Amino acid sequence: MAAGTIREEDGRPTWLCRKIHGILLDISGVLYNSGGDGGSTIPGSVEAVEKLKAAGYKVRFCTNEDQCTRQGLVDKLGNLGFNLSASEILSPCPIGRKLIEERKLRPYLLIHPSGLLEFNGLDCNEPNCVLIGGAEELFTYENMNGAFRVLLDSDDPVLMATGYGRYYKSGSDLKLDIGPFTKALEFACDVKAEIIGKPAASFFLGALEDINISPEDVSIEAVMIGDDIVSDVGGAQACNIRGVQVRTGKFRTQDEKHPTVKPDGYVDNLAAAVDLILKYN
Amino acid sequence: MAAGTIREEDGRPTWLCRKIHGILLDISGVLYNSGGDGGSTIPGSVEAVEKLKAAGYKVRFCTNEDQCTRQGLVDKLGNLGFNLSASEILSPCPIGRKLIEERKLRPYLLIHPSGLLEFNGLDCNEPNCVLIGGAEELFTYENMNGAFRVLLDSDDPVLMATGYGRYYKSGSDLKLDIGPFTKALEFACDVKAEIIGKPAASFFLGALEDINISPEDVSIEAVMIGDDIVSDVGGAQACNIRGVQVRTGKFRTQDEKHPTVKPDGYVDNLAAAVDLILKYN
Repeated sequence: MAAGTIREEDGRPTWLCRKIHGILLDISGVLYNSGGDGGSTIPGSVEAVEKLKAAGYKVRFCTNEDQCTRQGLVDKLGNLGFNLSASEILSPCPIGRKLIEERKLRPYLLIHPSGLLEFNGLDCNEPNCVLIGGAEELFTYENMNGAFRVLLDSDDPVLMATGYGRYYKSGSDLKLDIGPFTKALEFACDVKAEIIGKPAASFFLGALEDINISPEDVSIEAVMIGDDIVSDVGGAQACNIRGVQVRTGKFRTQDEKHPTVKPDGYVDNLAAAVDLILKYN
Repeated sequence: MAAGTIREEDGRPTWLCRKIHGILLDISGVLYNSGGDGGSTIPGSVEAVEKLKAAGYKVRFCTNEDQCTRQGLVDKLGNLGFNLSASEILSPCPIGRKLIEERKLRPYLLIHPSGLLEFNGLDCNEPNCVLIGGAEELFTYENMNGAFRVLLDSDDPVLMATGYGRYYKSGSDLKLDIGPFTKALEFACDVKAEIIGKPAASFFLGALEDINISPEDVSIEAVMIGDDIVSDVGGAQACNIRGVQVRTGKFRTQDEKHPTVKPDGYVDNLAAAVDLILKYN
């Protein structure tokens, strides 16, 4: 029996057969549902997060949210009853900024105006790389051409994307996510985008590093709980983090027949996941 | 020696070793260069077209132009000195309309306003297919979402595209073409677009049918002359039509090192191609 493995018992879910220390939680679709008027809390989630923290668990909130700053997200979640701090949140824009600064690049930022604040003070003159995010109405022909020309003019084109999702639900509407527009630029310029948010391994491993879990330990140490079968569950599993899907948010029953991704477990919602963790871990 | 093959002589280009009857010409980059103020004639092209017709050749003009009607294009080319009729022009919008009518579909038309006239009178209520063209400024987030939702709501999604080009030159600017936006919708909805213009085989073969050349004869009967190595030359060759590239329009010297497409011949411009045809064919 491998180190850390616990013998299965009645009722213990498979994903809790080995002890976990680090817990990564998606935000939208797990803590709350987005939509007009700031969205709505998913029942039981506020208490679930509080119980986890009270039990001493290290938790990081992993989101591809790029339409507000981390502090903006903390404030928004505060209005819904959650008590989080910006340092507990991993989101792609601050990571993108760090990468851009390290490589001394000047970005063409095709992102939502509310996400721009994370890039305050960065030199964006004569851009030599592109960072694309959930720009929504800013995905105009003019802006797409702007990004395209930066990439085409570059000998070694760098295209970073905050995510690679196909679409998402906002209120009752389905809307195109970043993935299709990233794909458009990849095709136009024959370049491969560097994904900086989920499902990139670097994103999940960075979140674990933040709670002092090294990549070598992740297979026995951590779980990611999310509503997105590909981005949350598949992404986490690809770097040996257990992936559990909640049946809230964008979960659909057809996810359970996904051709390539099989979650380590399903739970009805975050509250149910936390009850299991507190009982069996 | 195969039927129709002519023994090579000094100076005779390879692509004229067998007799051709049908001649397909690209328009933009071969007859004229587009740009502000209606564009400019490529020197010698007006006379070249007249010489071909005077010699009794059957010519069809094959374009992916979808930003004006065929008559609009005839008028535009008339201002540049060309004497063409709409019936000599093959363009994707009329073909798309025919396909849509045959299959009794109702299209969501994401195309340039000037191209819309080709669809006058077509039922576009409650659309159940998407036709995407060179919509340019109409490639807004809202319109892309509109097309996306039509595809997602359909059990058997149909996405037609007037072309699949990556980008094109307009005046001194490079602009994104239809391909990247088509790719975006293909990715979002996990669907494969049906290309109705170049480089689709159906497009070239339809042009030859129009001058009574059947698909069985094309390898010895026809040549396509264009400036686009992939769309014109590669597309034609894929259906056994000889493909000759002009060194005008979007031609670049690096085209001569294209990894997959090797033209049957190069000419400096249309005038040079026609001189060779008249001398050796």
